[in-house]
Amino acid sequence: MKEYGFSREYLAKGSRVGLSKEVNIVRIASKRREILKDEVVCEVPLTILVNEEELVTLQCSPHNLEYLAVGFLLSEGILGKGTEIERMDLSEKGWYIRVGLRGDFPIDKYLSGRRIIGSGCSGAITFYRDIDAQECVPLEDETEYSCQKISSFMRQFQRKSLTFKNTGGVHSCALCSQEGIEIFAEDIGRHNAVDKIFGECFIKRISTQGKFILTSGRVSSEILIKAVKQKVPIVASHSAPTDLAVGLAEKLNLTLVGFVRGDRMNIYTNNTRVM
Amino acid sequence: MKEYGFSREYLAKGSRVGLSKEVNIVRIASKRREILKDEVVCEVPLTILVNEEELVTLQCSPHNLEYLAVGFLLSEGILGKGTEIERMDLSEKGWYIRVGLRGDFPIDKYLSGRRIIGSGCSGAITFYRDIDAQECVPLEDETEYSCQKISSFMRQFQRKSLTFKNTGGVHSCALCSQEGIEIFAEDIGRHNAVDKIFGECFIKRISTQGKFILTSGRVSSEILIKAVKQKVPIVASHSAPTDLAVGLAEKLNLTLVGFVRGDRMNIYTNNTRVM
Repeated sequence: MKEYGFSREYLAKGSRVGLSKEVNIVRIASKRREILKDEVVCEVPLTILVNEEELVTLQCSPHNLEYLAVGFLLSEGILGKGTEIERMDLSEKGWYIRVGLRGDFPIDKYLSGRRIIGSGCSGAITFYRDIDAQECVPLEDETEYSCQKISSFMRQFQRKSLTFKNTGGVHSCALCSQEGIEIFAEDIGRHNAVDKIFGECFIKRISTQGKFILTSGRVSSEILIKAVKQKVPIVASHSAPTDLAVGLAEKLNLTLVGFVRGDRMNIYTNNTRVM
Repeated sequence: MKEYGFSREYLAKGSRVGLSKEVNIVRIASKRREILKDEVVCEVPLTILVNEEELVTLQCSPHNLEYLAVGFLLSEGILGKGTEIERMDLSEKGWYIRVGLRGDFPIDKYLSGRRIIGSGCSGAITFYRDIDAQECVPLEDETEYSCQKISSFMRQFQRKSLTFKNTGGVHSCALCSQEGIEIFAEDIGRHNAVDKIFGECFIKRISTQGKFILTSGRVSSEILIKAVKQKVPIVASHSAPTDLAVGLAEKLNLTLVGFVRGDRMNIYTNNTRVM
C-alpha cells in the first residue's frame, strides 16, 4: 500500500470511527412522551480532488474514505485505463481527499461532454455551495400537529403507493395539511419524490406554508434544505435521519421526525410542534 | 398553467404511465424454481435543459416529469429568485425536458463555483456518458453459485451491519466468494457502499472475478455498470431492481437477483448462474 502514500494508521483505525453518534430525542409511543438518547448515522461531505482539481463532493459515511475515493474513480473510469495513484491524502478537517494521479490528468477535458447524473435513490444531486445551508434562514412558524394526525397520515401514505406494493422499488413523498394528504408523489429517487411535490405546488400555486412533508426515505441534509427553502416546518419520515440532517433541522428551526411507525415516532428537533 | 406552455394532455394522462412494467423472472422458494411474471419499477434518464443548455440528467421514474424539473430548479435556487418559466416542453423520445426561463440564464456562471454533490442514498452521482453502458462489454463468466449459498450469505450479511441495527440509516454491500463474505462495507449511500468495496479490492489487490456482490439497496442502472466494470458476474440484492437494471444485466450478461429474503429470491436475468 505504501506506493499510494496512504496513511496506514487511518486505514487501520478507520473502522467505525464516527459512523454514528448519540443524540437526544423525544420518543412518542402510545401517546406517552419520553426523552431519551438514540443513535443516528453520521453524514459528511467528502470532496475528492484529483491532481488538486475538485472533482466531486459525495455525501457519505465517514468510514474507509480512501476506499470510497478509489472506488469512485474506478467506477468513473478515471482509474484503470493506464492511470495510476501516486499518493492519496485524507484530511478529516474539512473532509478533503487529495488523489495524485501519475501524469497530468485533464479534469476539464474529462468532465466536458459528460452528463452529470443523479440517480437511484435520489435525484441525489445538487449543485451545492457550502453557503447553501448557511443562506437558509431559520424558519419562524408556529404550526402544530398532533402526533395522532402524523401517525394516521403516515398509515394512509403507505397504503397509497401501489407502485411500491407491486415493485418494492420506489420512494414516496406527500405534502400534508391539517386536513390530510394534499399531494402525493413517487419516484425511484427519494430526492426526486420531494422535488416532484414542490414542483407541483409551484405549478399549481399551492402554498406549502404550515404544512408538513411525509417521506418514505431516509432524511439526509439535502432533504432538510429542500424543505426549509419551501418554508415547510416539519419533515416526518418512516425511516432514519442522519446527524447532519438533525443538526441542520436544529439550526433552521425545523421539526424532524423519524421512524413514524404505528403509534410510535422519534422527534429529533423542535418537538413542541408535535402535540 | 398555460403560461408555461405545458402539455396539458401529458399532465392529465401522465399518471402511472410507465411507472412499472412486467418482466419474466425465475422465482426460487424453498429450492423450487418457478418461471413467472413480475413487475419492476421503471427508470429513465431525464435530461433537463435550461434555455437550451444542459443542466443535469436525473435517473428517475417516468411520471410527472414537469413537476420534477420545476422542483429541481426550485431546490437549486434557479427558480424563485426573480426568474420565471416561460415555456416547458417534455420529449419522451430521449427523455429531454426543455425549460425556457425568462431572460438569459447564464448556466456556466451558475455552475462555476458550485460543488457537485451526490448524496444520501447514493454517492448517486456519476459523470456519465450515454456510451458508458455501451462501452461495457458483455461478461463472459461461467461462475455458478448455489441458491443456498446466496441465501445463507445474505443472512450473515444482514447480521453484520451493527450501524444499521443501531441507526437504521445505512446501506451495506459485500463481496462474496464460494467461501463466504470477503469484504463488507457500509455507507449512507448505496452507491458509496459499492464503490467502497471495489476501492478496497483495488487497494489491496483483491480479485473480484468469479465473485458476487450482495447489496441491501435497490439496484438501479449504475450499480449494474459498476459491477460489470469490475467483472462481477452476479449482483444479488435484498431489495428491488429497476427495469433499466434488468435490461442492462441482460445485455451485459450479468445475473441480477432481487428480494433475497429467507430461502426466496427472484432471478431477473441469466438464471443459470444460480443453481
